[in-house]
Order: sequence, then structure tokens, then C-alpha cells
Amino acid sequence: MSKLNFSITGKSASATKFEGKTRQFNHVIDEPEALGGEDSAANPVEYLLAGYAGCLNVVYNVVAKEIGIKINYLNISINGDINPEKFLGISDKERSGFQSLNVFIELDTNGTPKQEQELITKAKNRCPVNDNLANPTPIQYLITQPISKN
Amino acid sequence: MSKLNFSITGKSASATKFEGKTRQFNHVIDEPEALGGEDSAANPVEYLLAGYAGCLNVVYNVVAKEIGIKINYLNISINGDINPEKFLGISDKERSGFQSLNVFIELDTNGTPKQEQELITKAKNRCPVNDNLANPTPIQYLITQPISKN
Repeated sequence: MSKLNFSITGKSASATKFEGKTRQFNHVIDEPEALGGEDSAANPVEYLLAGYAGCLNVVYNVVAKEIGIKINYLNISINGDINPEKFLGISDKERSGFQSLNVFIELDTNGTPKQEQELITKAKNRCPVNDNLANPTPIQYLITQPISKN
Repeated sequence: MSKLNFSITGKSASATKFEGKTRQFNHVIDEPEALGGEDSAANPVEYLLAGYAGCLNVVYNVVAKEIGIKINYLNISINGDINPEKFLGISDKERSGFQSLNVFIELDTNGTPKQEQELITKAKNRCPVNDNLANPTPIQYLITQPISKN
């Protein structure tokens, strides 16, 4: 199967606001006032959590279909703590991102407890966003100047 | 400084569509038709990329302010490849998430090349989403049945 490429492109609209596009979808990302923003949109780590929850939903449904059970109800909550000191340049004792994540899943299916356990185990392992959060991902940076300046 | 908690909560609206909320912000996440969805919104990994780009914008601006330079222009594009075979249950030879990420940054500031280099290096290390993607994050799962079923 061929690989799928996903991308975002966009620009800084202010010190906290980013306006970007993924395919035909527009995204605005901002920070709450406590972090210097105008609170006009969800902040970056909330986008991360939204992607994670959305991903678990898709994978739970893919795996349930394989097992042959029906999901009647699926509620997903995720939260985590961030110490903003590294991000703000106050201290680098603790990591800058989520220190850990707590995923709460409320699940009702028409399957047996054994089938539900199979669903839970397989879904977690096959969720792309779970993979990128639980495991390291190589990241390449390329920094250029705008063409207009050259 | 006290830690900040961020969260999302929401429910499965279909096999591909998730409707969630972070504070006062609503999020809809779907999949393109090629992945079984209705393409009504960006997909989970696009949300992840949006959060990453938005996070880099904030951190670039925080660090530029510290260094005492002004960002005139900041364009951020991020892309990566996913092999959908593990996600879809076809094969587990390759990881399910982004295999790597490419970050392209177009930057213009009023600083010297040395100051810009300092900005680039510091911003990457202090970006929370970069941290959670580049490094492993512990994840705890708690699965329950809806109260109505008990």
C-alpha cells in the first residue's frame, strides 16, 4: 500500500496566533490570555489532544468492525499536565511538553468482555497519533529566508 | 510555577467523526473519503500537524522577544508520511504514525544571522509539541463502561 502524505502550511498572524491550512480546511490556533494570547481559538496542545482523541475514535471503529462487534457508545477524554517553565525560558529542569497523558475511554459495545479487551488492546497499538506520542519520531528542520529577501 | 492542565472531552459521532471540546472551543475531526470518512473536517493527524505548527509559532515569538529581535515574517509548513497498513490491520511491519516529520520554516527577522541561529535552536528545544513528538511520553489508559449500563 502506498504511503499517505499529510501536511499543513500557514503563517504567523501574531505572536500567538497561527493561521494554517490542511487540504481544504482552515485552522486558527491561539493561546489563552494567561499565555499571552487573545484566546480566539484552541491552543497548540489542545489541537494535539483533539487529534489524539479523533484518532482513537477512528481506530476503535476500524478494529471493532474487524472483530465483528458494534460500538454503541464511545466517549473519549484526554488530559495532561505541562510545566510551562521550559517553554517560557524560566527553567529547563522539566520537559516542555505533556509530562504524561491520561486517556479515559467510556465504551459500550454489543461484544463480550473478551472482544472488548481485544478491541482496547489492538486499537491503542494501531492508532497513528498514539504512536507518535508514545514513541520518538525523527524530525528534520529546514530553515530558509523568504525569497523576497534574497 | 504551577503546572497547566489541558484537556479534551468528546464523543464518537460516527466511525470516523469525533466531536470534542477543549475549554470553550469545539472541534470536529473526520477522515477523507479514501479513509472511510465524509471529509467534513481535518483528520486526526492534520490536527496534530496544526498543533505543532501553532506551537512553533508561539515559541519562536517568545524566544525572539527574549533575544530582543523582531520577527517580520514566519511561515511554517510541516509534512510527513504515514503507512496506513498497521492502522488498517493489513501489516504491522512499519509503525502506524508519521515515520518522520519535515518542518520547513521561512523566517525573516531584524536580527543578525547569529541571533537568528540562537532563535532557531532555542525555539525547537522549548516547543511543547516538538517535545511530545520527538520524545516518548508515558500514557495511562482507563477504560470504563457508561454509567447507564452498570
